[in-house]
Amino acid sequence: VTKNEPLRLLLIGFGNVGCQFARILTVEREQFPGLDDLNVTVVGITTLSRGSLENPEGIDLRRALLEIETAGRFQAQNPDFSSRGSADAASELEYDVLVELSTLSIDRRGEPACSYVRTALGRGRHVVTANKGPIAFAYNELRALARAHNCILLHESVVMDGAPVFDLAHFGMRGCRVLEVDGILNSTSNFVLSRMELGEHPDDAVRIAQARGFAEADPRHDLEGWDSAAKICVLANVLLDGDLTPLEVEREGILALSAKELRTARQEKKRVKLVCRAWREDGQVRAAVKLKKLSDSHPFSRIKESGGILRIATDLMGPIIVQQEAPTLYDTAYGVLNDLLLLGIKTRPSAEATPN
Amino acid sequence: VTKNEPLRLLLIGFGNVGCQFARILTVEREQFPGLDDLNVTVVGITTLSRGSLENPEGIDLRRALLEIETAGRFQAQNPDFSSRGSADAASELEYDVLVELSTLSIDRRGEPACSYVRTALGRGRHVVTANKGPIAFAYNELRALARAHNCILLHESVVMDGAPVFDLAHFGMRGCRVLEVDGILNSTSNFVLSRMELGEHPDDAVRIAQARGFAEADPRHDLEGWDSAAKICVLANVLLDGDLTPLEVEREGILALSAKELRTARQEKKRVKLVCRAWREDGQVRAAVKLKKLSDSHPFSRIKESGGILRIATDLMGPIIVQQEAPTLYDTAYGVLNDLLLLGIKTRPSAEATPN
Repeated sequence: VTKNEPLRLLLIGFGNVGCQFARILTVEREQFPGLDDLNVTVVGITTLSRGSLENPEGIDLRRALLEIETAGRFQAQNPDFSSRGSADAASELEYDVLVELSTLSIDRRGEPACSYVRTALGRGRHVVTANKGPIAFAYNELRALARAHNCILLHESVVMDGAPVFDLAHFGMRGCRVLEVDGILNSTSNFVLSRMELGEHPDDAVRIAQARGFAEADPRHDLEGWDSAAKICVLANVLLDGDLTPLEVEREGILALSAKELRTARQEKKRVKLVCRAWREDGQVRAAVKLKKLSDSHPFSRIKESGGILRIATDLMGPIIVQQEAPTLYDTAYGVLNDLLLLGIKTRPSAEATPN
Repeated sequence: VTKNEPLRLLLIGFGNVGCQFARILTVEREQFPGLDDLNVTVVGITTLSRGSLENPEGIDLRRALLEIETAGRFQAQNPDFSSRGSADAASELEYDVLVELSTLSIDRRGEPACSYVRTALGRGRHVVTANKGPIAFAYNELRALARAHNCILLHESVVMDGAPVFDLAHFGMRGCRVLEVDGILNSTSNFVLSRMELGEHPDDAVRIAQARGFAEADPRHDLEGWDSAAKICVLANVLLDGDLTPLEVEREGILALSAKELRTARQEKKRVKLVCRAWREDGQVRAAVKLKKLSDSHPFSRIKESGGILRIATDLMGPIIVQQEAPTLYDTAYGVLNDLLLLGIKTRPSAEATPN
């Protein structure tokens, strides 16, 4: 890629995050002057149930968005319409960056996303994933593959949406050894706990979370702790050099908890939270997702509704706490943009500015 | 500087932070494996009242520390002892990085530190400052000077010690436009407020803060809001592209506040906090330090004793909150180390690793 040519993107998945990403790149773009340096073109979009588009000169993203918004899928009369599936697109299309936006599959151990990422890296193409699967199930393998092919694997959106967790650790904690991380990482389960404290039925709380767009149609992965397990697994692998999969994370969900238990905790000025933690023990990296009763003064206690928080303890500094109050789809889409801006810098070294 | 030669440092100031920095580089170094890539040598230390040392081959830092710890100043029999003052050292010695560790002077508008930094940058030398003065009083001038001489000016320790505030904004929020920042940035005044809430006399609280090492011998700058004003001014200038000095920040201190007012606030389930804020208004960047009565659910309310918190609101994401619970001298010294690690990368491009 030379300096003035756009990075060519292949998007796998075009749900809420993909659509928001496309909106920021098109109809909303002039609202965001800081994106002037972002030079990308989308040459392919593949989905499981909404059809595919491809055009080496760049897909008409406005038209793509309109078709999804009006018809729920790409239309056969779209000149960019294609019957190519994700696996074929990853191995056959000419692109610079695979942007993996499909959803996590625990049952299939991160597949098929892991395979798409493997294919792209094996072809020497960079990868930005907002899907936890590849990083939770195959980080060490994929990182080695990226290094062997001199390309870059980025995943800022995977934990706490676009809140800069990995950039913070990589660029803001140089020289520190991360000893432990803990936090509240799943919006849906924290939302349900917050609402149950106020007397709401968990089923109603889930429906509200779904209406607001942050709970999946099938919320079991959130409520059973699988989403949290995948996220703490990612943090364990990336920040603590662990080698875990979500299946090796000690895991609790919130379904066993009764409204009565939450009310009793409140009477003791405590709150029950689903806390993720990764730590070192006997030379090993371990991770767990557990219900914990925390005092009101604990920094995690005040995380309400869909907020998230992460505490990073290191040998030289800290602990440092990063918190987001009410993430929206912008935050997840932004994480992908931030990764693409970093890729733009890394692949065009002359574009990198010093901090002043 | 070629790849394997150490960065030569000139330290101006050798108080608590300087000594902790020297301890990490020497007696404590093997505790911190992440510092393996840090390749520095201290060729000069100048102080106002503790004497000076210089040695182009590298000062014996263990001996320097021992002299300070046992005699309170460098000893004339030290073979590295020198009578050169800070200004002459900045303009005459051969060094790669000026590390400015002296304390903020409001009365002298950041001098003499601004002049030392100006001298170093004018000679094409990099600067790492833990002293707020140059960034609060002369950021735009110094940044232009750094650019003109192709060198780098870093200042991570200036706000929230080593907590990665500027690295976060620079590397973790690419493409975002910062709209507003607010937070609690002065440890001493927050400590005194926390203790007054519990019924302690402010003078006693100050003495405890001094004994713990985070309040200055003269705490007026903290209690009158000057330290907070300097910090929010730095954030306004660096993150919002402002052009303010601390003298232009609307400022309140905590001295006018009575214990009764704090108790009344607690009865209303509120806390009084000294809140810093910088924002855009009518095309201008403004900043203020004000006492605010915050509800218990406000994210700043739970910052107790010497903790700090900063909220950054942007156009594309957020707001993101960064928090430190109980900073120590390690945190400030670490901020300098982090800047030096970044300088090592920037001045030896081949050393820069991608995030994976």
